[in-house]
Amino acid sequence: MAIIVDHRKLRTFTENNFRFVGLSQEAAHLCADNFVAADLRGVSSHGAALIRRYMDAIRIGTILPQAKPEIIRESPSTATIDGHLGLGQVVADFATGVAIEKAKQTGIGIATVRNSNHYGMAGYYAQMMVDEGLLGMSLTNAAPYVIPTFGRIPVIGTNPISLAAPANRHYPFLLDMATSVVPRNKLDEYADTGMPMPAGWALDAQGRITTDAAALLTSMVSRLGGGILPLGGKGELCGGHKGYGLSVLVDILCGVLSGGAYADLIQNVKDGESIIATQVCHFFMALKIDNFVDMDTFTAGMDDLIDRLKNSEKAAGQTTIYVHGEKEYELCAKHEKIGVPLPEYVYEILESVGKETGIPLDVRRERR
Amino acid sequence: MAIIVDHRKLRTFTENNFRFVGLSQEAAHLCADNFVAADLRGVSSHGAALIRRYMDAIRIGTILPQAKPEIIRESPSTATIDGHLGLGQVVADFATGVAIEKAKQTGIGIATVRNSNHYGMAGYYAQMMVDEGLLGMSLTNAAPYVIPTFGRIPVIGTNPISLAAPANRHYPFLLDMATSVVPRNKLDEYADTGMPMPAGWALDAQGRITTDAAALLTSMVSRLGGGILPLGGKGELCGGHKGYGLSVLVDILCGVLSGGAYADLIQNVKDGESIIATQVCHFFMALKIDNFVDMDTFTAGMDDLIDRLKNSEKAAGQTTIYVHGEKEYELCAKHEKIGVPLPEYVYEILESVGKETGIPLDVRRERR
Repeated sequence: MAIIVDHRKLRTFTENNFRFVGLSQEAAHLCADNFVAADLRGVSSHGAALIRRYMDAIRIGTILPQAKPEIIRESPSTATIDGHLGLGQVVADFATGVAIEKAKQTGIGIATVRNSNHYGMAGYYAQMMVDEGLLGMSLTNAAPYVIPTFGRIPVIGTNPISLAAPANRHYPFLLDMATSVVPRNKLDEYADTGMPMPAGWALDAQGRITTDAAALLTSMVSRLGGGILPLGGKGELCGGHKGYGLSVLVDILCGVLSGGAYADLIQNVKDGESIIATQVCHFFMALKIDNFVDMDTFTAGMDDLIDRLKNSEKAAGQTTIYVHGEKEYELCAKHEKIGVPLPEYVYEILESVGKETGIPLDVRRERR
Repeated sequence: MAIIVDHRKLRTFTENNFRFVGLSQEAAHLCADNFVAADLRGVSSHGAALIRRYMDAIRIGTILPQAKPEIIRESPSTATIDGHLGLGQVVADFATGVAIEKAKQTGIGIATVRNSNHYGMAGYYAQMMVDEGLLGMSLTNAAPYVIPTFGRIPVIGTNPISLAAPANRHYPFLLDMATSVVPRNKLDEYADTGMPMPAGWALDAQGRITTDAAALLTSMVSRLGGGILPLGGKGELCGGHKGYGLSVLVDILCGVLSGGAYADLIQNVKDGESIIATQVCHFFMALKIDNFVDMDTFTAGMDDLIDRLKNSEKAAGQTTIYVHGEKEYELCAKHEKIGVPLPEYVYEILESVGKETGIPLDVRRERR
């Protein structure tokens, strides 16, 4: 039984519930739009399911919903922004706007951000830049769940990298990837079902490959050891040190360059079922394409590059080579039409939130 | 029996041989310094061994040694540069200089470069920026040896990413990584010895995992199929689509943004034993740190970040967690003192070049 919800209803539900806990109209709208964009793309870990965690964070004070982001250092193409522990989406929307404005004025805009919170899907902000005709990059650090090569304790985050570039005939290229083998929520899925994880995703408390997601999560969250492997896996044989290096790259541009938190300075606060990372840092870069090459040449190049990838010969048993963002844009178009299918666990979160606030979610149940 | 050469002698040998084939004093010096920096760091695939390939490329005209790089579009923080098929090192040195100068003036300098050639070790240019007290990034695309996820033909390059950031007590952080599981030269090493490669590095012509490096190289270079896997490996289970995405990211910033070549537009020209990629594109970014945060705060943050990584607990059986660049800086210091150990195959290349030009290499043989 799938639970289907119209994306407009999901947005209104999220917005109204955020209004109920004290967010301004603008902040509630931003958060709701960010969550629903993720649900529409099929990334439900970054969708409305987060509402419980955010409401808990507001209640215990790790998110300060009234805080206003502030530019603390600035030049024509650069800005350092202090989020003052405001909502990640509000801080990131502000910083992306600053990067966009500077890129339009000077060809480049970079904003590095400290003292923010979880900002949702990294690609949301890269997409904002592409919507303005720019090349966009969005990075964030995150709670320490990832183990450096040859270690056994998580010190770095899943620190995602997102880059978006406009094309013409094709969807924009939209890369949005954790620098770990898998994002944290994949572990939750395996813990829920009790299925063994693929060997090569995570290490146990002694630094050995584990497939037991439930045991790992307990140990990892209590910082007793064990965590997710960097992209490339265990050791150096298949490049695990590269994923580790990319995670540190993100930490440098977000955390060190902003004068904010990085690595295990980003503390997880546990509140009931919710685990809330604080003092998260971001980095945004927007490039005005025609500062470098004519826009038409660029988008024609992107179309041709995408064609070369998609039209190249397939491995035995495969029919499609995907380009980054393509699957998600297609899902989004489909879900806008037929509604967003919510996983059971997400619906349960939304139902319990709605009961508390008296603002229920109107859904449709379908046998699928 | 190891062959040991003093790094100054190796530099002079390389410089004099490049002078012999018509390079200017400045170009010969740049190339020699770039090669020897790689040999000192233990990256012999990017060291003096390349001299044969470069001399062949000059002879057949894919490298035009007299070409001068030209800025074709410019603003205070940005530049697009046409390398006019000059020596990659000359073009990249020029472009890095442009990025450094712009960063010092405006806080950011970005140079994207088309129509260049192989530029050596990506980290060399990131290091140049760190030597000027800047945060440096260096990217390049490369010959198509890497297969997109679900494909069986190489369309993208090993497209490396390098980032360098200064620290205080510690060596700078210097990431320099191919976005594939392994760089191309690892396949050569296994082909030479006949040992089976680790399963998970490469696919055969049908898109299946192969461990036969020699057969793969033959098929790959003739573009009959087969090639190196992107970082993360085969399929999507362990994130192969992420390495694939990072390689495309590099191609966009280098090739598409400069109006140059990307993906399999970068053609390999085969000349005897040498395989020479042409029309390579690069991307350089320099950031002036105190535009964002005080330099002291930044380097103290880098030291602390590195301490947190290195001091974290080790996996069973491990004694050291490395930070990127650390091993290479230590090797460099050692090799400056005791000489550079050349692998047998590298020495043979240098010996045959020296016989042709009458400029021999003075080496020491040691039982090791």
